[in-house]
Order: sequence, then structure tokens, then C-alpha cells
Amino acid sequence: MRIVFVGAGNLATRLSLEMHRAGMIVEQVYSHTTEHAKSLAEKLNCPWTTNLTEIKSDADLYVFSLKDSVLQGVIAGVKSNNGLWVHTAGSMPMSVFEGYANRFGVLYPLQTFSREREIGFKTIPFFVEANSEKDKNVLQEIASALSEDVRYLSSEKRKYLHLAAVFACNFTNHIYTLAGKIVAEQEIPMNVLYPLIDETAAKVHEMPPRDAQTGPAIRYDENVINKHLAMLNDQDMKTIYQLMSRSIHKEAQNE
Amino acid sequence: MRIVFVGAGNLATRLSLEMHRAGMIVEQVYSHTTEHAKSLAEKLNCPWTTNLTEIKSDADLYVFSLKDSVLQGVIAGVKSNNGLWVHTAGSMPMSVFEGYANRFGVLYPLQTFSREREIGFKTIPFFVEANSEKDKNVLQEIASALSEDVRYLSSEKRKYLHLAAVFACNFTNHIYTLAGKIVAEQEIPMNVLYPLIDETAAKVHEMPPRDAQTGPAIRYDENVINKHLAMLNDQDMKTIYQLMSRSIHKEAQNE
Repeated sequence: MRIVFVGAGNLATRLSLEMHRAGMIVEQVYSHTTEHAKSLAEKLNCPWTTNLTEIKSDADLYVFSLKDSVLQGVIAGVKSNNGLWVHTAGSMPMSVFEGYANRFGVLYPLQTFSREREIGFKTIPFFVEANSEKDKNVLQEIASALSEDVRYLSSEKRKYLHLAAVFACNFTNHIYTLAGKIVAEQEIPMNVLYPLIDETAAKVHEMPPRDAQTGPAIRYDENVINKHLAMLNDQDMKTIYQLMSRSIHKEAQNE
Repeated sequence: MRIVFVGAGNLATRLSLEMHRAGMIVEQVYSHTTEHAKSLAEKLNCPWTTNLTEIKSDADLYVFSLKDSVLQGVIAGVKSNNGLWVHTAGSMPMSVFEGYANRFGVLYPLQTFSREREIGFKTIPFFVEANSEKDKNVLQEIASALSEDVRYLSSEKRKYLHLAAVFACNFTNHIYTLAGKIVAEQEIPMNVLYPLIDETAAKVHEMPPRDAQTGPAIRYDENVINKHLAMLNDQDMKTIYQLMSRSIHKEAQNE
């Protein structure tokens, strides 16, 4: 399996390194950004380019791991003979490849990646899709060499999964940021919140989060809610507090 | 140390059981609700009452673990000779005891508790406060028998810590609920989100959450954001999505 990585961001970095570790051969890295292309290629010990026309045309697999906004344009600029083209985006349909490649699909790892943070791949759910049964099997095999959790998912469903991931990861992480700001202003170290953050995440494995809900909003304790609103100076944080409390209360009543 | 628990909710249940395990003697449980009083007292193998006037007057420690909205009223209904009265609420000042007890303070464990879920206490940060140096030391000692992380914190700062906890725990948990709703509608099992939820929580230990942020909002990828908004039918979820995305973007620009 000879692979070209088109993209050298967070996801491309962790995925290509894991494929390398699993014995697959990353033959080339492309990135628009010299620094990213070079840095990843050094880790993989392979050539790199920032020029789309220099991308090798005879690899077995092309992994497009790019921002959604540039994916289509880059696809249009790549030529290959008969490689399998995949992207790693939750929100983009497989059909972005139509008209540009004969064999194409999707290899979507549902996880948040940082360039410099090592992460175990075995438990990462991979969602695959391809325009032929044969290539679906090829992607199943590739993903199974990295993870124990590989599933088929259509583009239509994958976009909802990605939306859920934005909530579960990006919005959750932002809530951590906001909580961190509140304690920082009081000169309380953020690490006092870690056991709470960990337990909140751990609970979800054992009970539906709706049943695990605690705090003033689920009790609709207006006394506490109003005191909290008065303590928030930032208008966006105030609005987030109001909206989340209302939404928690609404969920509780739907039970 | 002979203790009366006034309250038998989630926090009271876990805290009293842990104190019991640590060799302290819970002598009585009071709850407004017969079922809760009885159930906790059975676990602790001690008497219970639903009548405020029957609360023992000669205990060493009275732990008031009640909803904020009823705390003041219950305090006014309890008589004791010279016990130390504490509450466990993040949002209530220590001064709620003034005029009702001579010795009082706060014992606030920063964690989310469910009645039936066992939780390790050793890493739970406890925040203590008392109206005398002597009782502050007593509370430090009690808390240190349960946890390795005991700190002093004033009522004024504790209320901000509690506000941060509402974000870090209650709002985060609600975000999980909303993410779960999105996948449930697509008949995708929620457990595919667990590795992502776990990694998002794990990351915060190693880097400030602001630096860990990924996804469409941090890139301000309006193409994805608008597609996601169009996919959400629930107006509250749409508004939460918009507001969180804007707030993530704003934080990124403040860097």
C-alpha cells in the first residue's frame, strides 16, 4: 500500500504517522504550506511538495485531508492513473470526487487530533464508504489495520455524525474554555475542575447524559440561575448560560 | 466525630457513605422525603427522620446538603447545642448560618454526584471555610480524611467556582445530551462518540482548551457552519450552535 497524503494538518499528521507505524508506505506529502509539508515529511521520512502538479500519479491510495473549503479545488488539481482517492472529512459527501477519479471513497476517523499529541488509534471509530464494493472492502481492511472499530456509513448519515461531533467535542471544549476563564479571573487554578470534567465524561459511558444531569438548571432553581447571570459580565457567556439552562430544563420536561 | 446529615440527595448520599467508610459515625439522616431518608439511613445503618424537630441536638457536626432554595428555611428549623454546622453548597455564602449557630462553615466537594454511582473521593477537590480558625482546621481535617486535595476558599470566590462548575459539568453534560439526540435520530449508537468525548476531556489536562480547539468554528468555515445550521430543526439547538460558534471564533481572535 503506497500512499500519498494530500494535506499535512492535525488529522493528516496523526493518521499518516499511524499508517506508517502500521507498515503502510507514505510515499509523499503535499501541503499548500511549506512548513507543514516539510515537517510531516521529515517525520515520515518521505519526499514532500507544495506543488499540486508534482503529486505522484502512481500511488495506490490518495488521502485528501484538507479544510472543506479547499478540498474540491485541490481534488480538481490532482492527476492519478488509477489510485483510490479518499477524503477524511465528516461533512463532505463522497461525491466530491465524481468526475475526477474512477475509484473513490471516504475514511473518516471520529476523533479530535492535535499535531503534537499522540493518541491511541485502536478505539477510534472509523467510518468508511466507497463507490464500489471492492474498494469499500479495501478501506475496511486499511482501517482495520489501525482500529478495532470500523463501520460503514453513508455520506448522508456521516454529515449528521459530524454535526454531533462538533457538539460533543468543539462545543464541549469551548465550554471548558469558558469555565477556565471564570476560575482564572478569581485566581483559582483550572486544574481544580479536572476531576469534575473527567467524571462528567466518564458518567456518559454508564448512563444517558440526560439521566446524569445535575445542577441548578435541571432543578430550575431560579434563585441560583439569576445570581449566576448577574455574576457574568460577558454578554455572550450570559446568553450561553440562559440558553443552556432553558434547554436543560426543556429536556427534563420531555422525559 | 458524630454526624447528622440534613438532606439525603445525590451529594448527601455519596458524602455520607464516604464519611462512614472513613470511620466517622453518621448518627442520623433527615430528609423531607421519607423514601430518601429511609433509603440513605438503611445504607448507613442509622436512624432517620422527616421531622425537623426530631433532629438530634448533641451531634458534633451537622451537614446541611440541600437545594439552595430550601437551605435557609431548614437551617432556621434545626436546634443544636454547640455542634459545627456546615453546608455543601457552592453557591451559598457561609453567612446563611449567622444567627442560627455559633460554630459554622462550608465543606464543598467540587464534583457531580449521582446517588447510585460510586466515585473515588481521593482526587475530589474540597473547599472549606469556617467562622473560626479552630473550626477551619476541624474541617480541613475531616476533608483530608476523605480527599488528598483540600483547600481554603472564601464564600465570594466559591460562588464563582460553582458558576465555573455549572459550565464544566452541567452545560458539558447537556452538550452530550444534544449530541446524543443528533446521532439517535440517524440510528447511530451514541457510544461511537465516547472516544471523542474522552479525548476532549483528556486533552484539557495537557493543554489549555483554547489551544486544543478544532473544528469548523475555530477555522470559521462558514460553508460547514451554514450546512450544519440548515441540518438542525430544533430552534434552541440552532441558536446554541450559532452562539457557540461565534464565541469560539471570538476567543480565537482574542489570542
